[in-house]
Amino acid sequence: MGKKIVIVGLGLIGGSLASALKGFEGYEIVGVARRQATLDYALSHKIIDRGSLSPEETLPEADLTFLCMDPHIIVDYLHRYAPLFRPGSLVSDVCGIKTCIMEAAEALPPEVDFIGCHPMAGTEFSGIENSFPTLFQNAHFIMTPRPASTGEHIALIERLAKHIGCKDIVNTTPEQHDAIIAYTSQLMHIVAVSVCDDAELFQCRGFEGGSFRDVTRVAALDVDMWTELFSMNAPALTVVLKRLEENLHAYRVAVENRDVERIHAKLSYSSERKRRMSLPGPGQIPMKQLQDSGNAQPKPMSST
Amino acid sequence: MGKKIVIVGLGLIGGSLASALKGFEGYEIVGVARRQATLDYALSHKIIDRGSLSPEETLPEADLTFLCMDPHIIVDYLHRYAPLFRPGSLVSDVCGIKTCIMEAAEALPPEVDFIGCHPMAGTEFSGIENSFPTLFQNAHFIMTPRPASTGEHIALIERLAKHIGCKDIVNTTPEQHDAIIAYTSQLMHIVAVSVCDDAELFQCRGFEGGSFRDVTRVAALDVDMWTELFSMNAPALTVVLKRLEENLHAYRVAVENRDVERIHAKLSYSSERKRRMSLPGPGQIPMKQLQDSGNAQPKPMSST
Repeated sequence: MGKKIVIVGLGLIGGSLASALKGFEGYEIVGVARRQATLDYALSHKIIDRGSLSPEETLPEADLTFLCMDPHIIVDYLHRYAPLFRPGSLVSDVCGIKTCIMEAAEALPPEVDFIGCHPMAGTEFSGIENSFPTLFQNAHFIMTPRPASTGEHIALIERLAKHIGCKDIVNTTPEQHDAIIAYTSQLMHIVAVSVCDDAELFQCRGFEGGSFRDVTRVAALDVDMWTELFSMNAPALTVVLKRLEENLHAYRVAVENRDVERIHAKLSYSSERKRRMSLPGPGQIPMKQLQDSGNAQPKPMSST
Repeated sequence: MGKKIVIVGLGLIGGSLASALKGFEGYEIVGVARRQATLDYALSHKIIDRGSLSPEETLPEADLTFLCMDPHIIVDYLHRYAPLFRPGSLVSDVCGIKTCIMEAAEALPPEVDFIGCHPMAGTEFSGIENSFPTLFQNAHFIMTPRPASTGEHIALIERLAKHIGCKDIVNTTPEQHDAIIAYTSQLMHIVAVSVCDDAELFQCRGFEGGSFRDVTRVAALDVDMWTELFSMNAPALTVVLKRLEENLHAYRVAVENRDVERIHAKLSYSSERKRRMSLPGPGQIPMKQLQDSGNAQPKPMSST
């Protein structure tokens, strides 16, 4: 019997992971979904090798299981199906919060290893019909192994992260993950939705440029999932929200007073930090570099 | 003697405008810069047809002059060189604020028309070496004519906006422009720099995804120019900054109290607004649509 990776939950991330894993070290990719229609879609689009509606049938034969559902469903699933996972096998997940998932994974039998994973990729769309195999290209891959996770399992996740196209792998603790993600991911989503709450939103059609589209891009989010992510990480998120309120307020005071010197000093400080941070990404490569490297012209990246 | 468009200031916007105007209704494109090196670059890259360091030499022969400098330089320039502009000609600018520019344009002789323009495009880079002819593709083009601007001049700007690739043209007042731009553009830049002021910025390497890159993209901004734009539009910007602080604060209270129902209700409200707003842009086309239209796969648009 060949090696099997079972992917439970075939949404945007599960579907993209399944298709990105095609050809990985000879593993068969088995998808588990709640609806036959999802399996039919996944099979007809060659996203999975085989599909099943039954955890009882698939979990016991998995060498590696990825749980790709919303956080609380993962927590329930771990408790409910704990006895089904095969001793010696590895279980993982891909959701955006790690502390409560790692805690729930304590429900697994002692012979079943668990490594929390979070590939830092997604889109503003959900569902398998929006999945695509290059979703993880150049994304960071974060993993939170247990202290007792085997070197073999850690190495397997590392090879897998490379196979799906991630550019680097960060090995950290669940607590550290959740604290930093509150800033880099959750706060950005709160900013996006808060900007959309402005009374002028619908009056501004025809006046929005790239910066507006970029800041608000993720605002049409999956409400159930993000409610869970925010409330499960409330303390860390509250801290960074307070800090952003303070930073915005300091800018507001400088602007309100038309304090040109202060605005200039603050912008010098902040923009220098951004330059030092230097996050090249799609649409961030200057023309000159592109020309030098012989690439085609960049797409317009409007900032105004 | 053929028709001439004179572009004063060959930076990112002036340079991109010059090259985008290539072939427009037979106009010769004349660039005016302060440094010979800029003209040499523009000539050798065929961005302009002819270059000059002298406003005295070029402004009197222009049918249309575009002032593409920082706002206060435009204001100074209009006062200083007002007598040079040819009667019957049209002068315009492309900067991000309109009220004070339109006021300064009162210095022009009565026979010289002025139409304020703001193509909603830019990048996080500056200088002619980062300019490119497709910068304005699919951008909104905003114009603020004088009440006395001629229909002929308004029609000229409309044809020109189409030629450089803008997707639509909004005709509005300087006051309306500045009020809305405070929200759609200036606030987005304040958000970007404020996020970069967070104490954890440099600890978050390896943990940032697409939403972080998008929100902070424009933070490495042109400090002098944005100091001017913010302080010249201080009252309107202060209003929208206050509203964002309030919206963020409301989210913070809900998160701090782990008020799951409230978070869910707020996210439903905000995300529905975003969906209703619907701003398709680069990286916002779902896979299915792309597949249906026979296009290639989208680039990964990480949101987490």
